[in-house]
Amino acid sequence: MAERLIALLSDFGWQDPWIGQMKSVIYQENPNAKIVDLCHDLPSFDIFSAGFKLFRAFKDFPVYSVFVSVVDPGVGGKRRPILVVTEDHYFIGPDNGIFSFIYKTENVREVLHINATHYFRQPVSNTFQGRDIFAPVAARLSEGIEVYKLGDPVEDYFQIPIPDEKIEDGKLKGAICGRDKFGNLITNIRFSSIKDLAATTKMSNFSVIVQNKEIKLVGGGYEQKLPVFAILNSSNLIEIASPSSSAAEFLGIDKLPLAVEIIGIK
Amino acid sequence: MAERLIALLSDFGWQDPWIGQMKSVIYQENPNAKIVDLCHDLPSFDIFSAGFKLFRAFKDFPVYSVFVSVVDPGVGGKRRPILVVTEDHYFIGPDNGIFSFIYKTENVREVLHINATHYFRQPVSNTFQGRDIFAPVAARLSEGIEVYKLGDPVEDYFQIPIPDEKIEDGKLKGAICGRDKFGNLITNIRFSSIKDLAATTKMSNFSVIVQNKEIKLVGGGYEQKLPVFAILNSSNLIEIASPSSSAAEFLGIDKLPLAVEIIGIK
Amino acid sequence: MAERLIALLSDFGWQDPWIGQMKSVIYQENPNAKIVDLCHDLPSFDIFSAGFKLFRAFKDFPVYSVFVSVVDPGVGGKRRPILVVTEDHYFIGPDNGIFSFIYKTENVREVLHINATHYFRQPVSNTFQGRDIFAPVAARLSEGIEVYKLGDPVEDYFQIPIPDEKIEDGKLKGAICGRDKFGNLITNIRFSSIKDLAATTKMSNFSVIVQNKEIKLVGGGYEQKLPVFAILNSSNLIEIASPSSSAAEFLGIDKLPLAVEIIGIK
Repeated sequence: MAERLIALLSDFGWQDPWIGQMKSVIYQENPNAKIVDLCHDLPSFDIFSAGFKLFRAFKDFPVYSVFVSVVDPGVGGKRRPILVVTEDHYFIGPDNGIFSFIYKTENVREVLHINATHYFRQPVSNTFQGRDIFAPVAARLSEGIEVYKLGDPVEDYFQIPIPDEKIEDGKLKGAICGRDKFGNLITNIRFSSIKDLAATTKMSNFSVIVQNKEIKLVGGGYEQKLPVFAILNSSNLIEIASPSSSAAEFLGIDKLPLAVEIIGIK
Repeated sequence: MAERLIALLSDFGWQDPWIGQMKSVIYQENPNAKIVDLCHDLPSFDIFSAGFKLFRAFKDFPVYSVFVSVVDPGVGGKRRPILVVTEDHYFIGPDNGIFSFIYKTENVREVLHINATHYFRQPVSNTFQGRDIFAPVAARLSEGIEVYKLGDPVEDYFQIPIPDEKIEDGKLKGAICGRDKFGNLITNIRFSSIKDLAATTKMSNFSVIVQNKEIKLVGGGYEQKLPVFAILNSSNLIEIASPSSSAAEFLGIDKLPLAVEIIGIK
Repeated sequence: MAERLIALLSDFGWQDPWIGQMKSVIYQENPNAKIVDLCHDLPSFDIFSAGFKLFRAFKDFPVYSVFVSVVDPGVGGKRRPILVVTEDHYFIGPDNGIFSFIYKTENVREVLHINATHYFRQPVSNTFQGRDIFAPVAARLSEGIEVYKLGDPVEDYFQIPIPDEKIEDGKLKGAICGRDKFGNLITNIRFSSIKDLAATTKMSNFSVIVQNKEIKLVGGGYEQKLPVFAILNSSNLIEIASPSSSAAEFLGIDKLPLAVEIIGIK
């Protein structure tokens, strides 16, 4: 069996021992586990933002990678631990909507309520299911366990509202869903949708409209002569950027998600 | 021999190359070393806080794990490099009190002054014993070296004051010793002491008294209807929390350690 | 072949998925890769500061280690991806001057324009060559690929100004080039130059002159009775420090590089 990576995403910071505790549990189950820190120190309790970061990145991971996502304010309450199985990947985390971008864009084959307690670290605490449930189950998955041994299918998994991305009235409507360390503003608008817009409108130049400002969609990377511009980023999403500075600050944009439109221009 | 994890805890940040330099030295000695980042970027020079983080986490690591703890303002001075051997684990670091929680709670079998210079990286600098002494010695331990080859037993190892945790006058006295990224306030009071208090007082409901405020000890996790509450956390310690927000901010608590009492209530 | 470490240095933060995405690409090419995080979360776009951090650390890594350095504001523009080959190490990154300290101090055997596109992740994005070019090429190097398969030698690689370090008029002239997490101020002045100065001046005590203040060069580590002092650090460089506090704050030094002189004193 090809080796399966385990990728960790959390709102845990490096100042607390949680990330290390999870790794310790994973290695105890699977000493050959290959663990990658995908994102940490995410804004506390911010499920939407974490879900979008996961969405931006998961396609770069090999087939059958296991993503453990721990932004989990309701830990120890009634929300279930779940495993989402798509065509190519596994996603483990709380049933609090953190996988909503995955539900919206991927072919979801199964969502399982993880309830095979004999695979859990015992005792299961009320405050750290990342260590007690997600980590040992991820280790089993990295070893190739059959998913139905881990729990039972559910249909009523929890979803949070994810902005639409669609063509309407000759415009492409979407939203800025994230900002990165450099202040780039990342939308949920895919390159393929721009191509659809071009086919619909018979136009080939486009601008992003955000808060009544028109921002030109250009080719190339971050080296541009414009103070702010839109480009295609490395996740195949449209992104608003400024050269060697923060587009978020330049535009005064703080609160996300924020609706945007892409229109054809002459 | 079972594989031994090496866990790193430091006040080094990711912006400096020190963590990576230590790993490079470990891998040069033991190419098969399995290294886990336990905590980094800890408050500079804060030995008490670092020691408590280590205390919160070490029990989750497998038997014979090696903990390298580098919060070391006196590096290059007279303080000794030491190795603490408990029933189950190894602790390497400066003899500056960072292991005081371990001394207080664990069965310490031996404390050794690490002086086997032939195992050190040469030359030994005056400012980075983490790289020059702790890392290569940790690598040897992970390979199973006999501890007495690394140094000589000492009795006069340095300890810093650690708050007591004890039942007195029908109350359980302890202290808030740490806060985590989410603003949860973590005490040194163990669940077993609560059981002792229940047996002593014949009571079954309890409150934490902190700065004259009474905070209810409840079951479950972070999802509670109360604005602030106490629960049992994943390290088997009593912790004060607020739902999806910072208990430290809610209570205006900044300076630690801070004495608390647990009392029986009707 | 001896195993080659891959060390990553970037201005990416842990809150974004880029570090993890790069590791995923490396592991897909070389499942046995051994990756070390050298520095991350560096000041955005600051090539000089990143280059100095790399310079401070690379000598601690084993022969044939591969350093991937991604501080890359011009990504997707005309700047080339390059591979710098020295006697002992490989350096991969953008041709934007980030390796200028290496050019100045090391025996550079070859600088290659990385243009062997068949080794790149496809398609190559305009905004993330760290993932698309540097990561897969680093993986190949860690497997021992012959460097000339990766690109063609260039002579006109880009350099940024690096402060000189030289003896002139009986003084040793250099510059503070970096500060660390603790506020220590690190110069580009090597210990060997101090020895040269001693030989030239027949003096054996020295002071660092910074902004007209005289700071004594002393032996030992950070435990000193002086409020500010200069010592030899673990990278064999002269460093200005304060005991358990920030020399940078004590001296009010913020903007780097900053010229300093070392003079003999009675």
